[in-house]
Amino acid sequence: MTDAALSTRETADVPSGRPAEVPTPAPGDPRLARLSLNQRTTERWSVAEAVAGCVRAGLPAIGLWREPVQEIGASAAARLVADAGLRVSSLCRGGFLTAADPSRRRHALDDNRRAIDEAAELDAACLVMVVGGLPEGSRDLAGARDRMSDGIAELVPYAARRGVRLALEPMHPIFCADRGVLSTLGQALDLAERFPADEVGVVVDTFHVWWDPDVLGQIGRARGRIASFQVCDWITPLPPDALLSRGMMGDGHIDFPLLRRAVERAGYAGDIEVEIFNADVWAADPDDVVATLARRYVTHVLPD
Amino acid sequence: MTDAALSTRETADVPSGRPAEVPTPAPGDPRLARLSLNQRTTERWSVAEAVAGCVRAGLPAIGLWREPVQEIGASAAARLVADAGLRVSSLCRGGFLTAADPSRRRHALDDNRRAIDEAAELDAACLVMVVGGLPEGSRDLAGARDRMSDGIAELVPYAARRGVRLALEPMHPIFCADRGVLSTLGQALDLAERFPADEVGVVVDTFHVWWDPDVLGQIGRARGRIASFQVCDWITPLPPDALLSRGMMGDGHIDFPLLRRAVERAGYAGDIEVEIFNADVWAADPDDVVATLARRYVTHVLPD
Repeated sequence: MTDAALSTRETADVPSGRPAEVPTPAPGDPRLARLSLNQRTTERWSVAEAVAGCVRAGLPAIGLWREPVQEIGASAAARLVADAGLRVSSLCRGGFLTAADPSRRRHALDDNRRAIDEAAELDAACLVMVVGGLPEGSRDLAGARDRMSDGIAELVPYAARRGVRLALEPMHPIFCADRGVLSTLGQALDLAERFPADEVGVVVDTFHVWWDPDVLGQIGRARGRIASFQVCDWITPLPPDALLSRGMMGDGHIDFPLLRRAVERAGYAGDIEVEIFNADVWAADPDDVVATLARRYVTHVLPD
Repeated sequence: MTDAALSTRETADVPSGRPAEVPTPAPGDPRLARLSLNQRTTERWSVAEAVAGCVRAGLPAIGLWREPVQEIGASAAARLVADAGLRVSSLCRGGFLTAADPSRRRHALDDNRRAIDEAAELDAACLVMVVGGLPEGSRDLAGARDRMSDGIAELVPYAARRGVRLALEPMHPIFCADRGVLSTLGQALDLAERFPADEVGVVVDTFHVWWDPDVLGQIGRARGRIASFQVCDWITPLPPDALLSRGMMGDGHIDFPLLRRAVERAGYAGDIEVEIFNADVWAADPDDVVATLARRYVTHVLPD
């Protein structure tokens, strides 16, 4: 790393180019004690690179994705993480349980069992469940929701035997048609509460839930059920690709301390994972992304 | 109109280019008795052109927008509509009541009073209220919602004296930051129910509410409060500009008969307004758009 690169990294945020408001917290800074990098935030990094990046920046936890994990195998990934002394705050992702076609459904359930096995091997705090959208050509939203619930119920005993907690992720309604028919935290809790809390929890992702008029009430209701707390911002104008529309904390409209305090009042003391899908973030140098998110975490997530 | 144009209009839907599934209902067809054209669906048409287009197609009602109405003045617009024998199913739109700055707030309230005067002059069934998003730079969503509620409360007596029914429009959460902090039908009803039902109702727009796990329950709760029922589809992939992401009924994922039946069970017997903001729809010939929406209304909205 050149001095010039280091200096830019320390003085300018990515992707905004705005001046850094605070020095980057150094490894060992107690404010980093719960900060986790979801590896899709630094999309071009392999598991090994992301683990090394966390260590360089002093982040104690990482959220992994199945595809990069599978490139080296779950046991190799588990060794990398353990050797680095990191926690796995989540594995993304199981789910996609809405197919009506029996063979597609069977295939989805099989794939979820593999995801559960991988989460067990990685000792992940939870397996994030993105439940899936409407099947091609279908307009039967209630039916898709029913099949999704049935699929979760079918997977819970398998996951429980392996000590893997399923984390139901309510997704922003922008994704209801094509990605996640679980649309609110209340709806996720309605389903989660059919099972023991240590077997099925929920994800509170600020991007997905910030708009909900009942979000604080539902976070309160989620006591003991919050398996993962993920942060990223809602930015406007919304980028053209809805899947890549997430922003760096502080670049958008979300009041993070409000939601973090609510999650903590509900008893959550686990890692806080930064998950940003955004073409501009992905185009930036991953070490710059990690430095920026550590600063923004300190300035925009942690303050009371 | 050339025979060739007529023939294409009758055989191909816009903007999809898909073959028409049914003949276009002719003027006088009883299936058109409740169909209304929201004039933004044919964005390039003036009020006079849109009124003439409705008459040509046999549509008995029109939803007007303030900007084109103001081009000729509300009284001239009212005469055009009355002379054509059309109903005004709605006037779009009042609202934008979330400003914290006192002078902006006063300006917004003044503008809403003008909108109410225009709705009265047009004898519109309701004034649609798009309540506004977060003020520039603000992350205080609860505060914006409170100011919005206060603004509605301030406008109700003025509207009631003029016989204008305010119609609160819950907007898809995709618009929460920049357009409408009223995000669910339940939230809209919580506010509407503070006032008499003939003074404050709600809009049920399929695009905004279709994803809501509680939509059928809330439509049932809205008995006597539904001031407007608007239809358009949720299409994927979502077009790049979120504001222009609406689709022609049948091109997307919404189960229209399900929502129409629910609205009717809740006592709504008024017009069904087609409101589509979409660059491809706007690029098509407006008469083609009206012919397509009449066919799609018959095939995708009316069936039981």
